[in-house]
Formats: sequence, structure tokens, C-alpha cells
Amino acid sequence: MSLLVVGSIAYDSVKTPSGKREEQLGGSGCFFSVAASYFTEVSIVGVIGKDFNNSDLRFLKEKNIDISGIEKTDGKTFRWTGEYMDDINTAVTLETQLNVFGNFNPKISNQHSKKPYLFLANIDPEIQNKVLESMNVKPKFVACDTMNLWIDIKKNELLDLISKVDMLFINHEESKQLTSEDNSINIYEKVKTYGSNNLVIKLGEFGAKLFSKSNIFSAPAFPVENVVDPTGAGDSFAGGFMGYIAKHGVIDSETLKTAIIVGSTMASFAVEDFGINRFKNLKYSDIEDRFEEFSKFTYFNPMHE
Amino acid sequence: MSLLVVGSIAYDSVKTPSGKREEQLGGSGCFFSVAASYFTEVSIVGVIGKDFNNSDLRFLKEKNIDISGIEKTDGKTFRWTGEYMDDINTAVTLETQLNVFGNFNPKISNQHSKKPYLFLANIDPEIQNKVLESMNVKPKFVACDTMNLWIDIKKNELLDLISKVDMLFINHEESKQLTSEDNSINIYEKVKTYGSNNLVIKLGEFGAKLFSKSNIFSAPAFPVENVVDPTGAGDSFAGGFMGYIAKHGVIDSETLKTAIIVGSTMASFAVEDFGINRFKNLKYSDIEDRFEEFSKFTYFNPMHE
Repeated sequence: MSLLVVGSIAYDSVKTPSGKREEQLGGSGCFFSVAASYFTEVSIVGVIGKDFNNSDLRFLKEKNIDISGIEKTDGKTFRWTGEYMDDINTAVTLETQLNVFGNFNPKISNQHSKKPYLFLANIDPEIQNKVLESMNVKPKFVACDTMNLWIDIKKNELLDLISKVDMLFINHEESKQLTSEDNSINIYEKVKTYGSNNLVIKLGEFGAKLFSKSNIFSAPAFPVENVVDPTGAGDSFAGGFMGYIAKHGVIDSETLKTAIIVGSTMASFAVEDFGINRFKNLKYSDIEDRFEEFSKFTYFNPMHE
Repeated sequence: MSLLVVGSIAYDSVKTPSGKREEQLGGSGCFFSVAASYFTEVSIVGVIGKDFNNSDLRFLKEKNIDISGIEKTDGKTFRWTGEYMDDINTAVTLETQLNVFGNFNPKISNQHSKKPYLFLANIDPEIQNKVLESMNVKPKFVACDTMNLWIDIKKNELLDLISKVDMLFINHEESKQLTSEDNSINIYEKVKTYGSNNLVIKLGEFGAKLFSKSNIFSAPAFPVENVVDPTGAGDSFAGGFMGYIAKHGVIDSETLKTAIIVGSTMASFAVEDFGINRFKNLKYSDIEDRFEEFSKFTYFNPMHE
């Protein structure tokens, strides 16, 4: 079944221990849709400026991503500049130029408003709420992501959003900030009181935890020998996750668990090259192979007597 | 097969968000041997002062731990005082009184010097080296633990030790400090050049990673609802691990992986109460049950087509 994502489309400039790149294609919506495209039909809603490269639109189209929801407006595309220092897992934002993204007011077409799977990437929760209200048919499964900024300045809007989604994706630190809890089980209990029954806590290099009504599931990150650029790992994770469940159209606990590993697999590819480069030649069979390896390094035999 | 541990025996005073305890039985040797005692015969070598409580010796004996290697000398037992603040995973040491432990010079009896499994808990690497030299029969499997202090002040002695052991247990931060590497795969490559073929990186609340020649294995921590006192979690982990492999007397990659989960299971019990209290009434069947739960929350189905 098909999947809609509303998120940012950006040009990122990054410096990592592996090198520097200027103005590479990025943004939550891009990473998400590219990762999800391996599993299901995906439509992206976002905004770009007049300076956006046609070759980047072509790249998205070649991934079979429906880009009819990308609006081109006067002005420049969203820019983000960041650096990963000693701790490769934490980005230091050097500059954010919202540009056209500052006035982002997503218009959801009639066709898009009937998509059964919806991912509200990390943007202003007011906009996330609006998108959700624009859906003409109640989606089968809605997930959202967020960040510290919105917890700081739009907590009420964010809580309103969480009350209406099926799953919240959130970083570990931000999950603590949101709930004022420390222990992940207590964090989940709090998130349930907000109204979301499923929670994914993203642990970066330590993997991810999934909490749902019927189970807790914990997945390590795939061990990547050379992390080149962590930008987009979280969105690639969410893209793999949502793409996988949308493909199967089943939301039982086993599917959610497998989807976490699919998401982790996609994140592990994302970080192996700058920006979205690793996805340029990535084949579905590469994903299957890495998923297999994932099974091997998490599987253990029962205790012997 | 039987197992020897050389480590500290201490009275710990701790303050955690769950409360305060004064002078509770602790020390790496105690946590390790108590956890290992569920799986195999274990002998502890350590030193206590005249003030040591007979009831604590009785407790160890009741766990079928061979305490003939515990030496009682003039002076007071080692004391450690620490506090766990907001971040329950990191202890702040408030006071260390080495007392009799400051002159610890372990004497390894002839019987102990033939034990096939040896764990050198976190003590001065000079002493760890000496113990290793005292072994009359080369053990089948030797593992050691260490800490930042020894990396700072006795790195050469520590590297000498690592060149002679089969496995190094080390915290994540300390593994980075030791190797000047960031990425765990590179950390393992470095540790191999030091001479140890197996490495366990302890990630606290995020579990543990095992690196051996034939595989990488990653295990989450068991989700504990209420972490009461994290003291001894790492040593309980190592005790479960070593106890399990000593019990089976087989050191293949599958046994090592299962042993990591056994270790994580023991650590998850350790933190549920102050000091070693949780082990007072813990039954082997409790361990089997939690191991089973562990399987459930890490197991995932293959990808569907």
C-alpha cells in the first residue's frame, strides 16, 4: 500500500571526519522517501526554491518517488550546514537558512489525502497537525518524528499531534526531554498517556527500541566500519520502517519488529557515504543481504542445560 | 569446568534515586562470583579486613562459592562510596578507602592455579599479570576487565596483560580511551593487535557488543523497569558470561553469543535491588525465564517477499 511523507527537502553542507561536502541533496523528506522507495510506492510533499537542481528531481523520480507534491516557489531551497566532530553521532548545526521552507504550507492533493500510510517528518507540529487534518480518508497508520526545538517552543501542539498518531519516532535524549522520564519503559508509559500506542526510541549508534502494546523490541545498530556522514540516518531508518509496513499492509507486532530491522538496515547504508549517495546504486538484493547479516549478529542459541 | 576470579571484596555505600545504603557487600570479585555461581563451581581470591562480617562470608558459602582464597588481614575491608545522580548509568565516586586492598598480593594456591577458566577482575594490571604468571597450568580461557585509571597510569602493564588474555571486557568509553579509536570495529582491530582475540564492549543501558575472530554479536540490555542500584552490573555480566562458558567447557562462537545474553540477564537482575540483594533469593529458573524473555524481545522474523 502506498505511503505519503511530508518533510523537508534541503541542500546540506557537512563536514565530517571523512571530508566535506557542499550543498548535497538532503532533508528529512528526501532521505525518508528514498529509503522507503525500495519497498513501496511513496509520494513526497515538500517545498523547493527556484535554485533546486533538476538533476535532483530526476534522481527522486528515478527512484519511482511520486514528486507531484513537491512545490517550487520563489526563493531559495532550505539550507543546513553542520559538522560532526569527535563524536560522529552528534551533529553541530553551524547554520540554518530556512528560505522557502520558512513559509512551508503543504497542500495535500485529493489523491495524496487518501494515502493509507502517512509519515510526518520532523517539522513544525502545527504543520504536522494541519497535514493530518487534510487527510480525506483516515490513514491506516500515521507516524511522526520531532525534535528538541518543538518540545521547547510548541509542546502543546506536539502533544496534540502525538494524541492523534499511531507511532512516535524520537531520539533518546528528546524522549527524555519530552516526558521528563529517564527509563525507557516509563517513557513509553507516558507516551501512551499522550495517546500514541507505539513508540520508537532512536539510539543512534546503539540502535533502536520499539514499544507497542503487545511487546518491547530492542535492536542494535548494524556495525558500520566507516561512518562517513550520519546525516539522514534517522529519516532513512523511518523510511525503511514505514516502507516495509506499508508494503505488507499488516501492522502486527511481528511486522513491526522486522520493520525495525529493515529501518536499521537502511540507516546503516545511509551513513556509509555522504548525503544520499549510498542509495544511488544500492540494490534491493544489497538490502536483503544486509538484513541476513543482521539476523546473524543478533541471533543467539538457547541456553544449554 | 571450574572458574577462578581474582578481584575486590568491598563494602559499598551508595546513593541512588531509589535510596541510600551504607556498607553493603560489594566489589568486583563478589558480584562476579555470585553471578557465576548459578552456572559453575567458582573460587574467589581476594582480601578482607578484620571487620568483615561473618554473615557475608556465609552468604558467599551458601552460594557454593569456594572462599578458601579469601585472605583476612589486619586492617579494614576496602570501602567505596558512590552516588548515581540524574544519569543512573554513571557512578560518581565520592570516596575510595583502599584499606587492606591497597596491599593486595593475591596468593594463588596450587589447587586454584590449575583452574581452567580465569577472570581477572578490574584491579592493578601488575597484580593481574602476577596472578596469570602464578597459574601452574595454562588456563583454557582467561578474561580480564580494566578501567580508565589503569589506562592512565599503567598502560604498558595493561597492554602486557591484554597480550596474554583471551578476552578483554571493557566499558565503551574506556575502549575508546585505550585504543584512541572511535568506531567499535576499529577498536576491535586495535585490541587484536594487542594480542586478545576476543573483545566485549560493555554499553551499560545499551547492552554489549562481542567481537571474536569469526563474528560480531550485538546484544541490547534487558529493559529493567526500575533500576535501583547499577553497582556491580558489569561484574555480574562478566560473571554470568564466564560462568556459562565454564559450565559448558566449549568456546565456540555460538556459546560466546549465548553467554553474552546470559551475562546481560545476570546484569539485569543485579540492578533491580541494592548491592547483591537481588541474588539472595534468585533461582536458576528465574534466569531461564528471563533468558526466554530476552529471546522474545530481540528475535525478529525474516523479511517477507
